[in-house]
Amino acid sequence: MTQRPLLLTQGDPAGIGPELTLRAWLQRDERSLPPFAVVGDPAYLGRIAQGYGWDVPVIPVKPAQIPAVFPQALPVIPLNTTVSAQPGKPDAAYATSVIESIETAVRLVEAGSACAVVTNPIAKHVLYDAGFPHPGHTEFLAALASEGRSEACHPVMMLWSEQLAVVPVTVHIPLSKVPSALTTDLIVLTGRIVARELKERFGLADPRLVLAGLNPHAGENGAMGAEDGTIIAPAVEILRKEGIEVSGPLPADTMFHARARSRYDAALAMYHDQALIPIKTIAFDEAVNVTLGLPFVRTSPDHGTAFDIAGKGIARPDSLIAAIKLAARLGTRAEIP
Amino acid sequence: MTQRPLLLTQGDPAGIGPELTLRAWLQRDERSLPPFAVVGDPAYLGRIAQGYGWDVPVIPVKPAQIPAVFPQALPVIPLNTTVSAQPGKPDAAYATSVIESIETAVRLVEAGSACAVVTNPIAKHVLYDAGFPHPGHTEFLAALASEGRSEACHPVMMLWSEQLAVVPVTVHIPLSKVPSALTTDLIVLTGRIVARELKERFGLADPRLVLAGLNPHAGENGAMGAEDGTIIAPAVEILRKEGIEVSGPLPADTMFHARARSRYDAALAMYHDQALIPIKTIAFDEAVNVTLGLPFVRTSPDHGTAFDIAGKGIARPDSLIAAIKLAARLGTRAEIP
Repeated sequence: MTQRPLLLTQGDPAGIGPELTLRAWLQRDERSLPPFAVVGDPAYLGRIAQGYGWDVPVIPVKPAQIPAVFPQALPVIPLNTTVSAQPGKPDAAYATSVIESIETAVRLVEAGSACAVVTNPIAKHVLYDAGFPHPGHTEFLAALASEGRSEACHPVMMLWSEQLAVVPVTVHIPLSKVPSALTTDLIVLTGRIVARELKERFGLADPRLVLAGLNPHAGENGAMGAEDGTIIAPAVEILRKEGIEVSGPLPADTMFHARARSRYDAALAMYHDQALIPIKTIAFDEAVNVTLGLPFVRTSPDHGTAFDIAGKGIARPDSLIAAIKLAARLGTRAEIP
Repeated sequence: MTQRPLLLTQGDPAGIGPELTLRAWLQRDERSLPPFAVVGDPAYLGRIAQGYGWDVPVIPVKPAQIPAVFPQALPVIPLNTTVSAQPGKPDAAYATSVIESIETAVRLVEAGSACAVVTNPIAKHVLYDAGFPHPGHTEFLAALASEGRSEACHPVMMLWSEQLAVVPVTVHIPLSKVPSALTTDLIVLTGRIVARELKERFGLADPRLVLAGLNPHAGENGAMGAEDGTIIAPAVEILRKEGIEVSGPLPADTMFHARARSRYDAALAMYHDQALIPIKTIAFDEAVNVTLGLPFVRTSPDHGTAFDIAGKGIARPDSLIAAIKLAARLGTRAEIP
């Protein structure tokens, strides 16, 4: 099987996405990066490179040309929209290009022209101002992926690094809403998707999952909260009966140190910070966001648009590079259904 | 100022406390441990040592004799109660000895005979069975410390390691109760105690505190929860006006990696797992529990009685040793009020 190329979306053109993309291409040899193209405006990317004095030839291509062009120049699948953003100055005027880049990348990967999508960061509030109807990046991708399917995709966010992979079962909701949002069904659905993709995309024969408890000490037999026993424990039982290797609910504070991590492949946490604190504590620069539950591979760096430092040339490309490498690893195995 | 000795409480005699204490004494030279004594039953400790075949002479002493005895033998301040527990078999019959050990240690440290108390783990449910009226170890110490004072002590739990110090503002309550338990007053009271003790006991001239947000991304300006703005931000303002260097509320997931940690001396987290996940992830074996807000120094290892492995000789003394070292460091500076 020849390696199909990766597609990077442009992301918000006023954020750090463009400069990180250029930097990643500059490091293609030392970091052994697979061929990739950006879906964006070649002229805009060329101007950013020029502004920094970076030697990055930018060449508009069709997907089939990416592998041949990549060693000498940054291949760009051109948008219909032109972009004339200013780094650090977000503007709803560029929302069309942001959306077009994502849509085009998804269409190309679904058509088999590329093996995975790596999305550069977008700023939701900028898109909202332009009438974007989706809550966020991932939901937009899920909506695109669900088009023409009988069942809607249930996207699952995983934060992945070499040392630890975590999945928050609930994500961007206030902490006070977590106990009521957490259901046995949601945990089971999430666990199934994680187990399936660890097997199919990550290539693990028998993925081992652990589930964190919701309360301190996983509730200490109900003394400090009931949900560990009434909501999480039943989910563990159901997943086990389906043949998935899973244990929990475990006290969340003692499940993320090195010895504990060696006992599982992915940890399901019950809420945002329970998942993101451990991975960002030990792998801040290298953690990658990977969306499970989509019919294609999608990764993204684990940071935002960082408008405050965009255009200064100081943003670190480590997370984008890690996202590219993980996408290539997963995309090589992925079968487009 | 000559270094006064430390006192270790016996802890639950059926837990791992006795064996860890013997092990710590055996490692006194290689770990450069300061002189300490156990408040316990010398005969029981001698039998445990003998059972393992460890060369630990156990000698009953009065406090003044500790420094002279310590290099050759484990000094023990004898209890009135004798102990005949079996490791791994908790029994409410030994509750009297557990309580007597704690009371005696506190009395001696308050009298100036010792510079700090290091408590070995106890099992609350064993003490409850014997009619113990306090919710936990720390509350019992606070009650003892408050005797004869006009104002009750407000004990504050800090988890400390060389890399990170964290303080959970709320502790052993269900996650669903956290939002309502969290008040500006409680955060301010906690922040004041932490800042004062970092200065007085840890010797930091200008302690730097950070406060975690409660919600994902510290609420993202109210989009994901209001408490960060309505409860935590006002506490930051009040503490700042009192001259304390403090910032926050910060997104909890990005405040615990190495670069972030270099910017503060202690982090206040809003609930148990938010504090304990990061420290146990990076310093599982070395983290120490230190109680602030008491009129004396109290540390303890960051683990429980571990009845399941007690008597097997496999428990690691690292946390107890770290607790002893930190107690000595803090106790040398402490003035008994």
